[in-house]
Amino acid sequence: MLGAGNVAHHLAHALVDAGHEISQIYNRSKNAGISLSEQVSSSFTDDIRLIKNNADLYILSVSDKAIEPISKLLNISNKKIVHTAGSVDISILNDAENHGVFYPLQTFSKKRKINFKEVPLCIEASNKEFHDFLLELASQLSDKVANINSTQRRQLHLSAVFACNFVNHLYAIADDLMDKSIPFEILHPLIKETALKAIEMNPEKAQTGPALRNDIESLEKHLELLSSYPEYQQIYKILSEDIYLKNK
Amino acid sequence: MLGAGNVAHHLAHALVDAGHEISQIYNRSKNAGISLSEQVSSSFTDDIRLIKNNADLYILSVSDKAIEPISKLLNISNKKIVHTAGSVDISILNDAENHGVFYPLQTFSKKRKINFKEVPLCIEASNKEFHDFLLELASQLSDKVANINSTQRRQLHLSAVFACNFVNHLYAIADDLMDKSIPFEILHPLIKETALKAIEMNPEKAQTGPALRNDIESLEKHLELLSSYPEYQQIYKILSEDIYLKNK
Repeated sequence: MLGAGNVAHHLAHALVDAGHEISQIYNRSKNAGISLSEQVSSSFTDDIRLIKNNADLYILSVSDKAIEPISKLLNISNKKIVHTAGSVDISILNDAENHGVFYPLQTFSKKRKINFKEVPLCIEASNKEFHDFLLELASQLSDKVANINSTQRRQLHLSAVFACNFVNHLYAIADDLMDKSIPFEILHPLIKETALKAIEMNPEKAQTGPALRNDIESLEKHLELLSSYPEYQQIYKILSEDIYLKNK
Repeated sequence: MLGAGNVAHHLAHALVDAGHEISQIYNRSKNAGISLSEQVSSSFTDDIRLIKNNADLYILSVSDKAIEPISKLLNISNKKIVHTAGSVDISILNDAENHGVFYPLQTFSKKRKINFKEVPLCIEASNKEFHDFLLELASQLSDKVANINSTQRRQLHLSAVFACNFVNHLYAIADDLMDKSIPFEILHPLIKETALKAIEMNPEKAQTGPALRNDIESLEKHLELLSSYPEYQQIYKILSEDIYLKNK
């Protein structure tokens, strides 16, 4: 396992839980790497020259821009290797005959436990045999394995940024805007229901609120309330306008 | 019950479920009004002059700008009356001695069932006695009753627009951006986990993704993928910038 970030962390645990052995963790920074290697009972190195040569699979779970240089240093031609990135083409690893992608479509934080069986695992492989190898492995970790090519995956990752990172930022803004005398918890049922509604209905059909109704009076009151937050005002305007235009 | 929109619909059902009688539905448009009146076994009128005079409580669940004109036509001085709006001050009803607000903080769609016991009910009243009346009623409908004044409610409603309407619009954008060969369902676990994470952790601490990491390469790829969606490009840029600035 190369990397010890959020994805590497959860993937390594899922592999161990499914009975696999992590033979070694490589990570540039020692703290995170040693911590993960201890959790999954593997050895650790921060020296790329000391990466073991005999693993059944090399999982590159590093930052997008580190994938290529690390793979060059690894001498991967005769290794089975995958990366775990949403926006990086499979071809970045084509120095190896057996290369592929193993992309878990979920938001991971180290501190938060997750049921990996529920995580969609998007796989792609350079050839049929290696595809079957990855499919078998992925199916041991997750009940939701999907064959997704690089073009689809790039598009999926973009959608995920909207549905996860941007959504989470709107939660953070909502929190920031709360009257300090009211705990954020009062919004929890709304946050939950908004998500469940979008899952069970189509999100376009689920829309409600002042922008949809083109309720100019509420919109103006809100913009006034946001007068000391120019960045939120801008976000408010653009999203309200787009809601109105898309639904009218 | 004055109004037959999404809020009126769910509130009327919750009242009936708690053993109350809806004596009459008033609604400007007949179809929605008659449909709701049949569901809750009440009479119906679309003529404001025919509104019954003897209800224990008048619930104005109409559009924000209709609250004042309808209340004027109602001759409310000796009636107990509330509105259900997030952004409208309690004082709009102060022709009545006993006036207040009964604001359910949730997103409602008629077609979707909801457990009203879980809906935060924000109440405000013009006097102590009427407050106790509303508190008693609210507690029969929901386990989450909160005393929220008009200033707090306005702020709360604004936060709710970010955490619900805007969030839902981002889901709709994500759906729109999906490769048509992949079903939107693949994003469901991500949507659910993003919401649960924000509920169980602080949303600021829950953030992940390219904007947080200031991963310029991914950001540029995404903006390029959005080149035929200028409005989404703008949303992408503004939200990414704000994520980066707030977390750096």
